Amino acid sequence: MAEKITAVELAKQQREISVSEFFTKNRHLLGFDNPRKALLMAVKEAVDNALDVTLESKILPDVYIELNQIKEDRFRVIVEDNGPGIVKDQIPKIFGKLLYGSKFHRLRQSMGQQGIGISAVLLYGQLTTGKGMQITSKISSKKPANFYEIQIDTQKNQPIIIDEKIVEWDKDNGTRVEIEIEGIYQKGRQSVDEYVKEIALINPHAQITYKMPDGEKIEYKRAVNELPKESKEIKPHPYGVELGILIRMLQSTNANTTAGFLQSEFSRISQNIAYEICEKAKINPKSKPNNLSGEEAESLYKSIQDTKIIAPPTDCLSPLGEEALLKGIKKEIDAEFYCAVSRSPSVYRGMPFAIEVAIAFGGNLEKDGQVRVMRFANRVPLLYQQGACSTTESIIETAWRNYGLSQSKDSLPIGPAAIIVHMVSVWVPFTSEAKEAIAHYPEIIKDMKLALQDCGRKLSSYIRKTFKAKEQKEKIDLFEKYIPELAASLGDLSEEKKMIIEENLRKILKKGLKDLLNGIEEAEELEG
Amino acid sequence: MAEKITAVELAKQQREISVSEFFTKNRHLLGFDNPRKALLMAVKEAVDNALDVTLESKILPDVYIELNQIKEDRFRVIVEDNGPGIVKDQIPKIFGKLLYGSKFHRLRQSMGQQGIGISAVLLYGQLTTGKGMQITSKISSKKPANFYEIQIDTQKNQPIIIDEKIVEWDKDNGTRVEIEIEGIYQKGRQSVDEYVKEIALINPHAQITYKMPDGEKIEYKRAVNELPKESKEIKPHPYGVELGILIRMLQSTNANTTAGFLQSEFSRISQNIAYEICEKAKINPKSKPNNLSGEEAESLYKSIQDTKIIAPPTDCLSPLGEEALLKGIKKEIDAEFYCAVSRSPSVYRGMPFAIEVAIAFGGNLEKDGQVRVMRFANRVPLLYQQGACSTTESIIETAWRNYGLSQSKDSLPIGPAAIIVHMVSVWVPFTSEAKEAIAHYPEIIKDMKLALQDCGRKLSSYIRKTFKAKEQKEKIDLFEKYIPELAASLGDLSEEKKMIIEENLRKILKKGLKDLLNGIEEAEELEG
Repeated sequence: MAEKITAVELAKQQREISVSEFFTKNRHLLGFDNPRKALLMAVKEAVDNALDVTLESKILPDVYIELNQIKEDRFRVIVEDNGPGIVKDQIPKIFGKLLYGSKFHRLRQSMGQQGIGISAVLLYGQLTTGKGMQITSKISSKKPANFYEIQIDTQKNQPIIIDEKIVEWDKDNGTRVEIEIEGIYQKGRQSVDEYVKEIALINPHAQITYKMPDGEKIEYKRAVNELPKESKEIKPHPYGVELGILIRMLQSTNANTTAGFLQSEFSRISQNIAYEICEKAKINPKSKPNNLSGEEAESLYKSIQDTKIIAPPTDCLSPLGEEALLKGIKKEIDAEFYCAVSRSPSVYRGMPFAIEVAIAFGGNLEKDGQVRVMRFANRVPLLYQQGACSTTESIIETAWRNYGLSQSKDSLPIGPAAIIVHMVSVWVPFTSEAKEAIAHYPEIIKDMKLALQDCGRKLSSYIRKTFKAKEQKEKIDLFEKYIPELAASLGDLSEEKKMIIEENLRKILKKGLKDLLNGIEEAEELEG
Repeated sequence: MAEKITAVELAKQQREISVSEFFTKNRHLLGFDNPRKALLMAVKEAVDNALDVTLESKILPDVYIELNQIKEDRFRVIVEDNGPGIVKDQIPKIFGKLLYGSKFHRLRQSMGQQGIGISAVLLYGQLTTGKGMQITSKISSKKPANFYEIQIDTQKNQPIIIDEKIVEWDKDNGTRVEIEIEGIYQKGRQSVDEYVKEIALINPHAQITYKMPDGEKIEYKRAVNELPKESKEIKPHPYGVELGILIRMLQSTNANTTAGFLQSEFSRISQNIAYEICEKAKINPKSKPNNLSGEEAESLYKSIQDTKIIAPPTDCLSPLGEEALLKGIKKEIDAEFYCAVSRSPSVYRGMPFAIEVAIAFGGNLEKDGQVRVMRFANRVPLLYQQGACSTTESIIETAWRNYGLSQSKDSLPIGPAAIIVHMVSVWVPFTSEAKEAIAHYPEIIKDMKLALQDCGRKLSSYIRKTFKAKEQKEKIDLFEKYIPELAASLGDLSEEKKMIIEENLRKILKKGLKDLLNGIEEAEELEG
């Protein structure tokens, strides 16, 4: 056997790995698998940020998107917003450092939540073109606009400032991001075009201008002139905390007593509940939380699980609501019937969430083949990984035959319909950093199914009525055609009697026609 | 409209996120989705490390695994090896810091490759039980054994040393890891039991002792008394480098000339090739690499792609080989026919890799239902995400009907068979940090299919021959039965003639029987 290698020699090879190096090597984990998807990701991350920051600053968003083709597989991506701008010294870190941001450490509904997105775009850009990202930002009409060109030092996960200057910008406030990346532009279901269309659908309060590589400009007009309800930050619910996190919170809290700690660090814990939890755990409610032992922390943890605590507040969420959702889909989908359901919030693992579903049916929607599924999380379209998403599971497990669509086992239903599923939450459980699919929590799937069934019933009553109406009309037509013949064939009756019979038959028919009209009107009301 | 929030207020919320915090919140990304899988992950990460380090130190591995049930959903996991041990001051970082290790920065076939695994186990343990990890390690009989109890400071991604002492250990060298975690123990396809069985199958050079929660001990005996061929570290192949990486390499190299840089930093670049690349790129081969501009780097990059460079060396890989693979599967799978194929290496994105496939057929394998698929990467069993793995795609896209198994469209074949697919590479492209499925590179799928077809042909000739043999035997039986009758019915021939005819018929039959025997013998040889 060859000579053994010792522990000392092995030790020499141990090194730290920076998170930028890690994600450079594993860029597929962030969604940059291939040039087509990369182009989408670049637009998506910048637009998500624009919509998040305008909403947070209570500004009705105007977003400009431009794709500029430089050569076959290289594009310049430009995204500009009318948001509040970024304070000068924050610019390099926000764009040039992975795992940096404002959204990770809080529980609040927003598009971004990880502090990776836009810096991952820069990482990919510099990997494929060797070039940096240009950012122009202005925070008020009284201040100058700041321009930066930034790259990432991947070994240190720190921004490198290539250029930095003050520039003229005829805008009061906003941010403009430009980057050159390797990309491929293609139309279709997973394209930038589709993403822009869907983001306009689910954000009807946004005005979006999109200049495509061929120079054509599309305007997605604002359909709702009000910002969505503000989403609020909440404290964690005690049912969602894990033992290890509880221990860390106990160690770092400023509260003087354990009861006070429970009240101040969690939502939904009153003084009474705090005392009840401490009592069950056999811990003095006035004990100092920093001094609790591991065993005490564990019994506190157990006692939390054993105590009845009301569900977390759900007014922190900002779903679209049925009205805005309907406006959004009517604007972007050409159909003959629309319906929407916005469920009241529920809770998974201590996290509040709400499900909204809409269905568009008929019209120009494709008749053959499976229904179109459009998935959204916190107002962001999800274009990849449909198979891995709990929305898909929920749709497949709903019995669409009951609602007038055909469906084979374990499949999406068939018919001229689009099904829209939207989840909002303070923390959407994505299956990967690329945020493409929603994880399969039973509570989430249950609520999705209930919303789908609710929408399904509306669809079914429309289908049934228009179908019934059609069928009835056909019967009446047939009937009318045969009235004279029928009356005549009643044989050797006098002409007068024949007339009376025909008259009566027509009356019966008229009543039938009335039913028919009622049916059509009802259907139209439903259609809204 | 409510009051606007300014950029200054937003800036106050911007914070750094540590990689430990990130993976605590996103622990499903590391495979810790649920308590059952978490138990498997804990065993897997520790055993992978034990097998990697023994192989690297050229020690025939003896690995001890113990699952100790503390209560229904809590286990103490113990893994001990006879490896070279760990130098004292490296212990805290190796176990208590994410993204730290020896395997990330090199190109070499090993089980671990990311510097996350074992510290993720500690992260999960402390999250669910609040407790740390205990490590005992000894690097030689002349040195004492070091004991550490460690946790992770998740906000800083740094180890916290809870306890540190010298202990007695009746072992010359090795490492023992113990941790208490929340977990659920269940038998079945994705269990710890299955993982241990499969890791023994694919590492026939390892001796593994596994003490299950009920106290029963299973011994997986060493089947091969030699270590696998040593895998070697290689330099990156120029075809696999990306522009951004090339630029970084140019900036940080110590080489004095661009030609020298190309020769020293990449594999397969001779002086001639280096000059050819520089010439095409219109760069002086003697120019200082650190001084090249962005445009020059880009033309160097393009010129690399346009230059014919031989494929990377493949002797750096250490596949099992057909013989060891057969020994491994015969040891663990009870079948009547076995075959194996170990393909010579290929290259994807500049990375050498090799595919090995084995098939076990008949015997005690289940007859009804889809074949059993066993997937391995760098000698590690992959138990989750079968649907997302390129091995599965390769099997589904192979036409198994040609090889004697039935198969419906887009499905795994049906029959009493187990199909083993093993990929070795200096960098296995996993689809997630949890390392559960191999990404769908066309080069990889192509090689998998070729290996599967090769094995399929061996299987087919076995099935055909034993099947043909059976069929032939049935024909002969039938024939023999009718010989007297046939001869008799040849009518008014003399008794003598009847005898002759019968005799001739028997001769014909005998010849047929000979063919039959040959067929059976050939089949037995194949089975060999």
